[in-house]
Amino acid sequence: MQDLIGMSIRFSDGKLLILDQQKLPEVEEWIECNELEQMISAIQLLKVRGAPAIAVAASLFVGSLAIRGMEREGIIEAIELLRAARPTAVNLMHAMDLLREITKSGLATWREDTVAEARRVFEEDVALCDRIAQNGAALLENAKSILTHCNTGGLATAGCGTALGIITTAARLNDTLHVWVDETRPLLQGARLTAWELNQSGVSHALICDSMAGSLMAEGRVDCVIVGADRIAANGDFANKIGTYSLAVLAHYHKVPFYIAAPHTTIDSDCPSGKEIPIEQRSAEEVRGFVHTNNTFSWSPQEAPVHNPAFDVTPASLVSAWILDSGIRTLSDW
Amino acid sequence: MQDLIGMSIRFSDGKLLILDQQKLPEVEEWIECNELEQMISAIQLLKVRGAPAIAVAASLFVGSLAIRGMEREGIIEAIELLRAARPTAVNLMHAMDLLREITKSGLATWREDTVAEARRVFEEDVALCDRIAQNGAALLENAKSILTHCNTGGLATAGCGTALGIITTAARLNDTLHVWVDETRPLLQGARLTAWELNQSGVSHALICDSMAGSLMAEGRVDCVIVGADRIAANGDFANKIGTYSLAVLAHYHKVPFYIAAPHTTIDSDCPSGKEIPIEQRSAEEVRGFVHTNNTFSWSPQEAPVHNPAFDVTPASLVSAWILDSGIRTLSDW
Repeated sequence: MQDLIGMSIRFSDGKLLILDQQKLPEVEEWIECNELEQMISAIQLLKVRGAPAIAVAASLFVGSLAIRGMEREGIIEAIELLRAARPTAVNLMHAMDLLREITKSGLATWREDTVAEARRVFEEDVALCDRIAQNGAALLENAKSILTHCNTGGLATAGCGTALGIITTAARLNDTLHVWVDETRPLLQGARLTAWELNQSGVSHALICDSMAGSLMAEGRVDCVIVGADRIAANGDFANKIGTYSLAVLAHYHKVPFYIAAPHTTIDSDCPSGKEIPIEQRSAEEVRGFVHTNNTFSWSPQEAPVHNPAFDVTPASLVSAWILDSGIRTLSDW
Repeated sequence: MQDLIGMSIRFSDGKLLILDQQKLPEVEEWIECNELEQMISAIQLLKVRGAPAIAVAASLFVGSLAIRGMEREGIIEAIELLRAARPTAVNLMHAMDLLREITKSGLATWREDTVAEARRVFEEDVALCDRIAQNGAALLENAKSILTHCNTGGLATAGCGTALGIITTAARLNDTLHVWVDETRPLLQGARLTAWELNQSGVSHALICDSMAGSLMAEGRVDCVIVGADRIAANGDFANKIGTYSLAVLAHYHKVPFYIAAPHTTIDSDCPSGKEIPIEQRSAEEVRGFVHTNNTFSWSPQEAPVHNPAFDVTPASLVSAWILDSGIRTLSDW
């Protein structure tokens, strides 16, 4: 079987390896995922992160269980536990639901079918990213400066990324393109991961604190904002990394186009609107300081009370366009 | 001569002591300021910070030079160098201009007059804070939850503070008041200093990342926003800690009152509008990680390009009221 090679996910000889994103950019360490507890913990600690990448990694982990001969009941139990590892992104749930159906099918080939489906999730994500990048790059032809939030590149997907895949594709067509990278507190995916990816791909960029986006827009230095999505409701509302909603309001006020980029697997047609998307609350220590390479450092008073939602919901009315693999949607298309 | 005792500034036996705010909240260490270079560095490194506190500390330092018998020319030179230590806040410039005039007066009593003026700056700031707190607390009678940014309390002034002085005064009248504390990247004055002050005064609060303010407003969980100011232009525009402008836009969008609190010494009548306020750009390493207790920690790629304005400008049109020691102004009063 051919190896599957992504920027942060590899599947080789039936084994899943993930690049430990908690340790980036200092250390590039690959982890072999063998145990279920280890895989769930890797998802919860954001060693693997990004809605598409979580779905891909969890699927390939299920595939590895099938290859190693785990019994059907064990695999189904693993699927249920993986499905519940993080509550907001929906790609993981979609992928696990499909795998469960195949595992439960009763066909003699269920084991091979499960592995094939897991590999398909990876390969499909690569193709989806390419289509998103093509669709989005066309939209950005005249942009000189783009602001993005969190990390939505090769690290967050099996392919070139969603929002960041569009940016790097657009930058190949326009080498004067400049990217403002929100650091994305509390887990600093922008400062650690997006800055790392843009440095590697040679795209002009500058890191900013999340609170600086508004004044850059007021100065006319942001031509558009592009972000990813963890779940898109049936009416176009979407959940994404905390801080996305503030950016959407700021972009609206300054008449700056605000785009989201995501594969169709991010759409949850069972979820009528943003109100129904569950928002994960994470630990206080993430906000009291920073959590990095398994260490935590606190700069706040001990036991300082904290509010720490990992995501927020942006209403469809604030979105200029949804850049999907299937094409570009606007508000009237929902 | 009676000692002057503030939360972060003490003047005793002709000596200036400042509480090292870089080391808070872990370590409470007082520094005796004897040398000019040391005093300027303390201002630039934010060991003493907050527009009013910088003016008070620099004034008392000039007073200490006069007490120690430094010659007039040396004192005038020190005044010029202190005046230029940070470019955005105007209180420091006002205080240094007055002290220079007195030192240069040619009166036989210039030395005593300089010391008396330095002490007056401290005592006036205490009185101004009290008046601001009284004026502001009346305005907040019905607020249940207040959001604030940066630190504007006893650490930032000689007295009870500006925006935070209002909040703690209002909390004494209404013990159900809850405060959302923006952590205030990059230097984390909210996470380190405001959380520390609110914990000490027993006011209910929760620390948030700066990017969380928007979604809290959307959820109806913020009744008003109060911030301080580093310089108010003649038309009511003002400069304050980076991120203030974003909060003003978010408050405007959500119809949440947005107040600023400052002593009249923050008003620069020579500055026609916010456009003319110089904005300090600070070092990249503050954004690449964090600078704390003389150490720096970086979580970003080495040499990552950074944009790091310390302040932004909010137009008067986004301000619901200016809470001054002299009373409450609205837009039509400018």
